[in-house]
Amino acid sequence: MGEAQVSLKHLFRVFTKPEHKDSKLAQIEQHLSDNILDFLSQHVVTKKTSLEEIEQDFSDAFVPESPEFVSSHAENLLDKLVAHSVNTYSPTFIGHMTSALPYFHLPLAKLLVGLNQNLVKIETSKAFTPLERQVLGMMHNLVYGQEDSWYQQYLHSARHALGAFGSGGTVANITALWVARNKMLGADKGFAGVAKSGLAAAYRHYDINQMGVMCSRRGHYSLSKAVDVLGIGRDNLITLPCPQQTLPPEQALAEGKRYQEEGNKLLALVGIGGTTETGHVDPLDELADVARELGCWFHVDAAWGGATLFSETYRTRLKGIERADSVTIDAHKQMYVPMGAGMVLFKNPEDANSVRHHAQYILRQGSKDLGATTLEGSRNGMAMMVYSSLHIFGRRGYELLIDESIKKARKFADMIEAHPDFELVTAPTLSILTYRVCPPVIQEKLKTADEGEKNQINHKIDVLVVNVQKLQREAGKSFVSRTRLENPDFNSRPITVFRVVMANPLTTEQDLKNILAEQSKIAHARHLWKELEKSESSLTT
Amino acid sequence: MGEAQVSLKHLFRVFTKPEHKDSKLAQIEQHLSDNILDFLSQHVVTKKTSLEEIEQDFSDAFVPESPEFVSSHAENLLDKLVAHSVNTYSPTFIGHMTSALPYFHLPLAKLLVGLNQNLVKIETSKAFTPLERQVLGMMHNLVYGQEDSWYQQYLHSARHALGAFGSGGTVANITALWVARNKMLGADKGFAGVAKSGLAAAYRHYDINQMGVMCSRRGHYSLSKAVDVLGIGRDNLITLPCPQQTLPPEQALAEGKRYQEEGNKLLALVGIGGTTETGHVDPLDELADVARELGCWFHVDAAWGGATLFSETYRTRLKGIERADSVTIDAHKQMYVPMGAGMVLFKNPEDANSVRHHAQYILRQGSKDLGATTLEGSRNGMAMMVYSSLHIFGRRGYELLIDESIKKARKFADMIEAHPDFELVTAPTLSILTYRVCPPVIQEKLKTADEGEKNQINHKIDVLVVNVQKLQREAGKSFVSRTRLENPDFNSRPITVFRVVMANPLTTEQDLKNILAEQSKIAHARHLWKELEKSESSLTT
Repeated sequence: MGEAQVSLKHLFRVFTKPEHKDSKLAQIEQHLSDNILDFLSQHVVTKKTSLEEIEQDFSDAFVPESPEFVSSHAENLLDKLVAHSVNTYSPTFIGHMTSALPYFHLPLAKLLVGLNQNLVKIETSKAFTPLERQVLGMMHNLVYGQEDSWYQQYLHSARHALGAFGSGGTVANITALWVARNKMLGADKGFAGVAKSGLAAAYRHYDINQMGVMCSRRGHYSLSKAVDVLGIGRDNLITLPCPQQTLPPEQALAEGKRYQEEGNKLLALVGIGGTTETGHVDPLDELADVARELGCWFHVDAAWGGATLFSETYRTRLKGIERADSVTIDAHKQMYVPMGAGMVLFKNPEDANSVRHHAQYILRQGSKDLGATTLEGSRNGMAMMVYSSLHIFGRRGYELLIDESIKKARKFADMIEAHPDFELVTAPTLSILTYRVCPPVIQEKLKTADEGEKNQINHKIDVLVVNVQKLQREAGKSFVSRTRLENPDFNSRPITVFRVVMANPLTTEQDLKNILAEQSKIAHARHLWKELEKSESSLTT
Repeated sequence: MGEAQVSLKHLFRVFTKPEHKDSKLAQIEQHLSDNILDFLSQHVVTKKTSLEEIEQDFSDAFVPESPEFVSSHAENLLDKLVAHSVNTYSPTFIGHMTSALPYFHLPLAKLLVGLNQNLVKIETSKAFTPLERQVLGMMHNLVYGQEDSWYQQYLHSARHALGAFGSGGTVANITALWVARNKMLGADKGFAGVAKSGLAAAYRHYDINQMGVMCSRRGHYSLSKAVDVLGIGRDNLITLPCPQQTLPPEQALAEGKRYQEEGNKLLALVGIGGTTETGHVDPLDELADVARELGCWFHVDAAWGGATLFSETYRTRLKGIERADSVTIDAHKQMYVPMGAGMVLFKNPEDANSVRHHAQYILRQGSKDLGATTLEGSRNGMAMMVYSSLHIFGRRGYELLIDESIKKARKFADMIEAHPDFELVTAPTLSILTYRVCPPVIQEKLKTADEGEKNQINHKIDVLVVNVQKLQREAGKSFVSRTRLENPDFNSRPITVFRVVMANPLTTEQDLKNILAEQSKIAHARHLWKELEKSESSLTT
C-alpha cells in the first residue's frame, strides 16, 4: 500500500511540487480551513478506546524501509492519530488550559513553516529577531508599564534583554531562576561566579550551607524541576501550606527569616499569578515587600493568569506583579496562541547578562542574536503568533475574552452551588474553580461528623470523584480534570476534586449545565453513591 | 486603518469563521500552497536593508488598544516581516543547517495547530503520546538497533523512557547531562541524591572537589550552557585541542586520567557526531573505550550528523555511537522537519528515571505522561512531523538525501581546490566544509613564510573573509556563514573561514559555481585583495 519510488526525481518532487488539490492531504487542509469544529467532530472518535488499543497502532519501532505516498500516509494520520486525539476545540472540554484557537492561526502556522526561520541568531531570522524583541517589549510593558523612552533605550539593545521567549512556562521558570542564581552568586573578589566555577564552589566562596527557593504548596511542578536542574535540589524548594490557596505574606516572612537565621541563603520567593489548580493569585504586593525584606529575588509565575493584565477590571488582582524581578507568562494559555509560546520578562534589562554566552560562529560579542541569553538554542518563530494575536485582538479584545471567562466561571460556580449533588470546593477568583460530587445527605452529615468519620467519608467521595471523572472522560462528550487539594475544613487533609478551567470562548451555559447533568447521572449510577446515601452504617465498612 | 469592532460577536467570529477565500491571508496561504519558492522570491526583499531599518518597524512597545482586521494585519506581516525574513528555502542559502522543507509540512503544520495537543500529559494528547514514544523508539532503533522484543517491552512502558523529545539539540544536550548528573550523584546511604539534596550536598557526600565534562574544542556551545545551568560550571567543561578537528582518544584518556588523579570527578565524555563548524565526527568507538576506562557517562552529540545513520554507505562513520549512554539528534536539521524537533535517546530505558517527577494533577505515579521525564513542560505535537517524515521518506529516501548532500559537498570541495582564488581549509567528511578566499600569490607565499609573516598575512585574510562574507550576505543572492578555526598549519592559531552546509536538496552545481564566482568578484574589488597581491612590501604595514 502506497509504497513510493526511491529516486531522486521522486524526492525532488516532494520538495518542489505541492500535493494535488484532490489529494487526501489537500482535502484535510480544506476541511480544516472551512470548518475546523466540523473537521474535528467528524474525525475525532468519541467512543471509548483504551490507551492500550491506541498503542497498538504505534508499536513498530523500526523506521520503514521504503517511502510512502503522502496521500496514503494522510489516510493513516486520520485513522490512527486524528481519530484518537483530544478535541481541544470542543466547548465541553473544560478540564485544561488548552482550548479552541482563533482561525487565523491556521494559515499563520503554514506561513511559519514556509518561512522556517531559526531565532537563535539573526543570520537565520532577520526580521523575526526585532519582532520577538518587540513582543517581549509589549509584554514587558503590560507588566511593568515603563515609558516609551525607556523601551526605546532597551528594546533592541545588544547588551540588554527585556525577557526570553521559549517553548513554555517551564522553560520560562527555569530561565528566571537560572538568571537569579547566576546574579546572586556572581563574580566576586577571588571568585569567577557560579556560571564559570559551578555551584559547589559558589557555596564555598559565599559560605552557603543550603540555598532555597520559597513558594506556596500550589507552586507549579516546574519550580521543583527548576531547582533540580539548577543544582539547588528539590528538598530546598520550601513549599509553605496555603489553606486558603494563597501564600500568607506574614508566614512567608517568618519562614524566610527562620530559614536565613539557620544560616541558609534564600535565593528567591515565588509568587503565583493564578495557580494551576485553583486559579488563586498570591498577594503579590505584600510578597514583594517580603522579598525586599528578605533580600531575595522575587519571581512571579503568571504563566496562566498573566493575561488578566489585559483587563482593566481584573488587572488589580495582580497588583504588585510590577515589583517582581521576573515574570512568567504563557501566550499559549489565556492568549489563545498555539502550543509552544512561553515568555519570561525581566524588570531589569541587565539581569539576563548573568547567563549570557557566546560562540565563535554565532552569538558573537555585540551581536543581537537572541540565543545569547536563552536556555534553548535553535527555536522557531512562534513569536509571530503572539505578535499577530496582540494586533488582531488588541488589548480590548483580550480584555473582553478575559472578562467573559471570569463571568462564565462565576456562573458555573452558581450552578454548582444550586445543584444538590455538588459541592463547590474553591470558588473562582479568576476563571478556574474546583468542586466535587457528593450525595446531599452526606453533605449534611459532614457538617457534624467527627474527624475520623470525615476521613472515612472523604475517602469514599474521593473514589467516587475519580470514577466519575474517568467515566465522563471515557464517554468522550466532555472533559473536566481532577486534582487533590488540602482542605481547611478537614484539618488540611487533601480531598479529590473536579477542576474546571474556563478557557474556551465557545463554551455556553447550556454546555455547563449538560456537564453537571452528565456527572450527576454517572454518579447516581455508581454503587458508591448508593452506599454513601445509605449513610452511617456504610461508613465503617 | 483596519480597526475592528470590540464586541463579543466579532471575537466569536474570529474563533468560528474562517477568513474569506479572497482575503489577504487566504491569498498568502494559497500562494504558499501553490508555489512556495515563488512566494518567497516574490515577497522576501533581496536588497540590502540594515537591521536598524528593520527595527524601526518593530519599535512600538505598547500593546495596541483596539483589534485590527485580520486582512490588514496580513498586509503588515507581508510588508514588515516576510519581506525581511531569510529565504531559507533558497538553493543558494548554504551557510546554515536550516533548509528548504518538503511540501507536506505546510498542511501538516495546519493540522498540528488545528489539533493543538499538549504532549506533557495524555489527557491533552491521547494518541500523540504513543506516537511520540514510537518516534523515539524508531530513532532509538536507528542508533542502538535493539530487537523487536526489546522495544515491545519498553516502548510504551510507564516506568521507562527511550528518550525525550524537545525543542532542539540544546534541550536534548542539557537533558542528557541532567540525567547523567542525577544518576552519578544518585541516592546513597545517608544521602537522598542530587535531585533532592542539591549539588553542593552531593559533592560533600561523594567527596568531590570539582566535577567536569570533557569534549573537544569543537563541542557545541550548548554544552557550555548545559554545565552552567546544571551547576557544574563553564570552567569545568574541559575542552581539548583538536588540531585535526576530531578529539584524539589517547589524549582524551590521558587528560581524563590526569583530571581524575588530581582528585576530580569526571561526569561525562562527549563525542561529537558531526561538529557544527566542520562536520567532523569524533572517533566514537575509541571514545566509548575511553569513557569505559574512565568510568564516566558517554554522550554523543549527533544533533546534526545523526541522520547519517540512514545511509548504509556512510553510517559506519558514526561507528561506536551505539555504545553511547545518550545521543542527541535534531530532526529539524538533516531530517527536513520544521524548526523545533530535537531528541535525546537513552541506551538504558531506566536512566531517565533519575529525573522523573510527579505532581498531583498530572504526571501521576504510574501514568504514561511524557512530561514526567522531560525538561520542558507543555509542548506541542512536533513529533507528528517526524513521524510523517519517517514514513514519507522511509529509510531509503533519507539515505538518498544524505548521500546526495555528501556527494555535493565533495564536488564543491573540488571546485574550491580547482579555483585559484580559494583555499579549502577543511574537506567535508560529511556535508560541511570550510574554505577561504586568498590571492594565489599569497597562497604561495604562506608555504614558505615564517611564523611572524604568516600571522600578519592571516590577519589580513581574516579581514578580507569577514568583508566578503558580509557583503555577499547583504547582496542577498546567496549566503555562506563564517567561523574561526584553529589551524595546524599556523601553529594552531585561529583563522577565519567561510563555512558551507550542504543541506538543501535543491542546490545545484551551477548554484555553487555562482557562489564562488560572486565571492571572487567581491574579493577582487576589495582594497585588501590588491594590497595582499602587492605582496611582501605590504605585509609589514
